Order: sequence, then structure tokens, then C-alpha cells
Amino acid sequence: MTQPVDDSHLVEHTVGREELLAGNFLKVVRDTVRLPDGGSATREYIRHPGAVAIVGLTGDGQVVLERQWRHPVARVMVEVPAGKLDAGEDPLACAQRELLEETGYTAREWALAGQLHPCIGYSDEFIEVWFARGLTAGERRLDAEEFLDVFLARPEQLLDWCQDGTVTDGKTISCALWLQNVLSGRMVLDWRVISPP
Amino acid sequence: MTQPVDDSHLVEHTVGREELLAGNFLKVVRDTVRLPDGGSATREYIRHPGAVAIVGLTGDGQVVLERQWRHPVARVMVEVPAGKLDAGEDPLACAQRELLEETGYTAREWALAGQLHPCIGYSDEFIEVWFARGLTAGERRLDAEEFLDVFLARPEQLLDWCQDGTVTDGKTISCALWLQNVLSGRMVLDWRVISPP
Repeated sequence: MTQPVDDSHLVEHTVGREELLAGNFLKVVRDTVRLPDGGSATREYIRHPGAVAIVGLTGDGQVVLERQWRHPVARVMVEVPAGKLDAGEDPLACAQRELLEETGYTAREWALAGQLHPCIGYSDEFIEVWFARGLTAGERRLDAEEFLDVFLARPEQLLDWCQDGTVTDGKTISCALWLQNVLSGRMVLDWRVISPP
Repeated sequence: MTQPVDDSHLVEHTVGREELLAGNFLKVVRDTVRLPDGGSATREYIRHPGAVAIVGLTGDGQVVLERQWRHPVARVMVEVPAGKLDAGEDPLACAQRELLEETGYTAREWALAGQLHPCIGYSDEFIEVWFARGLTAGERRLDAEEFLDVFLARPEQLLDWCQDGTVTDGKTISCALWLQNVLSGRMVLDWRVISPP
């Protein structure tokens, strides 16, 4: 921000927490909060370990994408590779692992593009977005119960898909903004050579 | 897509559904699915009514933004106005209502930019993104328990914030891609004059 902002009139304070659901996959809590005006309210949300997404760029400038059935939205989605952090896992190590497991690619260079919060209304999830280049193709290692196709597309094609409704995955559209701006020179990444996992 | 794609080897079929949580705010179900290889798995996710987000542009080309405490991520977020659909509500009517309630603005012209899915791993939520222009300022009508500040920023400032980590809200970053491309002429919107609500 260009100047310091006093947000004290907006802040809510947690005064209690109740576990609402401990599913196989989803954890939900309900916090009781003290509102800025002194009143009380409840806030229900998902507790999530955090995730990474990867914008992988091949030597000829194509982007690594996936087609994957996403059951909540009941359709096959075009998206960048992504996955959840294991307990205590470093996000870059997770990005290397997920890129390899889902696509078979290893990358010579990595750069952190940014972090996004996909669902601030009801989840504490963050997604760290890493760009990867200097890719070498290899064998992927999908988890059981994981079915997805990997393919390459030109950045212009991906940007077209983000406009025409082919791509509606939020994290992938956010990645497309950063990709567009990296390619135009508006956004400059700090590339580092990282050893394979 | 440029050519038809056969996704039958990716599709999962629902064979059962269990309600896991009916909170004050969150509804969670667990579906049992038949996997592409004939196996079985469970998928837990939020059932959401859908939402809208609004990119409101003032006569001098600024964007209407909000600062709002988001309890799940425990911070004040800079974001575009947004809100959930009421039961049976038309998304454009919802966009008009949320813009007025949260910011006090009414708009003369509206254009649908697209739809995004913020959280395809564990929510069926979609967000319809509407652009609005020809704004007239008025009195906002916040819900009880709703505290937020409204302010204006130049598009270039918003794009800088999407790069430097000031803005991490996924829907707002997605909106920034569309805004950047509308302003550059890469994306063309179909503006329509719409009567106020």
C-alpha cells in the first residue's frame, strides 16, 4: 500500500473455537468472534494445510497443463499442476514433488511468483505459485485414485481459454495473469537453479 | 478447445451421497464415486449457492475496491465487491444488489466478463464476474455483522498490488487479469444498459 492504513475498526477477535467436522478430507471449525462494534458472531471455515501450483514452461515456451475431473464441479477442468502440502513440507519441495508426480517433469530453475488465497470466505487455504523452467520429461507417479491427462499449450492459447470460458479454475486464471505479465516484462521473477528432489 | 476431447477415461460417477455438516453457514457432503478404473472413492466438498464479483469502474477510470477483515485468513483483505446469490436470485440482480449494499454505487452499464470456480478441490462454488460502469455514488446498506471500507484505486495500482503481495484474494487476481485485458483491448466486453434495482 502507498501509505499505512489503520484497520483496527475492521478487525475481529477470536473468543472461542468449536470443531464442527473432521472428515476424511475436510476439517471444519466454527469460531466465535468479537466484532468491531463489540457484538458477537460465528465464522465457519475449512482448515487447510496450504497448497502449491506450478506454471511449468518448456524450452519452446509452452505451459504444462492438466485435464482432470473435479468432482465438486462435476466436470473436467483445464488447470495448472497443483497439490496440497504434506505436514511440515517446504512449499518449493512440494512444488517439485507435485510437478514430478503429476506430470513427470523435473525443472532446473524455479521462481516464486506469489501467494493467493482461493477462498477467503470459508477457507484458510493459501496457494504458493511457483514458475518452473528448464524442464526434463520423465515418468509420472500418480497417486491411487488420481486420473489426469497432461498436455502443453502456448501461453496465448491459455490466455484465450481464460477469456472464452474454457478455463474457469480460479488458481489457473490467477497464474495466467502472472504468466502474461512475466512474458510482457511487467513482472520480473527471481529465478534460481534448484537441485531435483 | 480447438478440437473435441474425449474425457471418458477421466470421469467419475456419483453412486451415493451423505450429508456431513449442515452448519449455520457451511454445508458439506460426502459423495461416493465410481472411479474411471472401476474402483471406489469418497469426495467431500462444500455445497455453495454461487456468488458474484463486481469490477466497478468510475468515470475517471478507477476501480471500486474494499478492505475487509476475512476471518479464515485472519487479515484485512483488499478485494473487489462480491457476495453470495440468494435462493433463486439472478446473478446480475445479485451483482446490482451487492454493489449497492456494500459500496453505495449504482451502475448504468453492465457486462459479464466470465465465470470462475475458486476452489475446485472442495467446493462447488462458482463466481460470476460482472463489470460495471457509469457509476453513481449513494448510500450503502451493510448487513449486520458486516464491516468494510470502500476505496478507489487506479487499475495500474491494483495490478501492482496483485504482483507485490498486497492483493492475494484469488477472485480479485482473476478479475485483475480480465481488467488488464479489457483495458488493453485484448478482451472485448458486451456492455448493456441495465435499469437500477
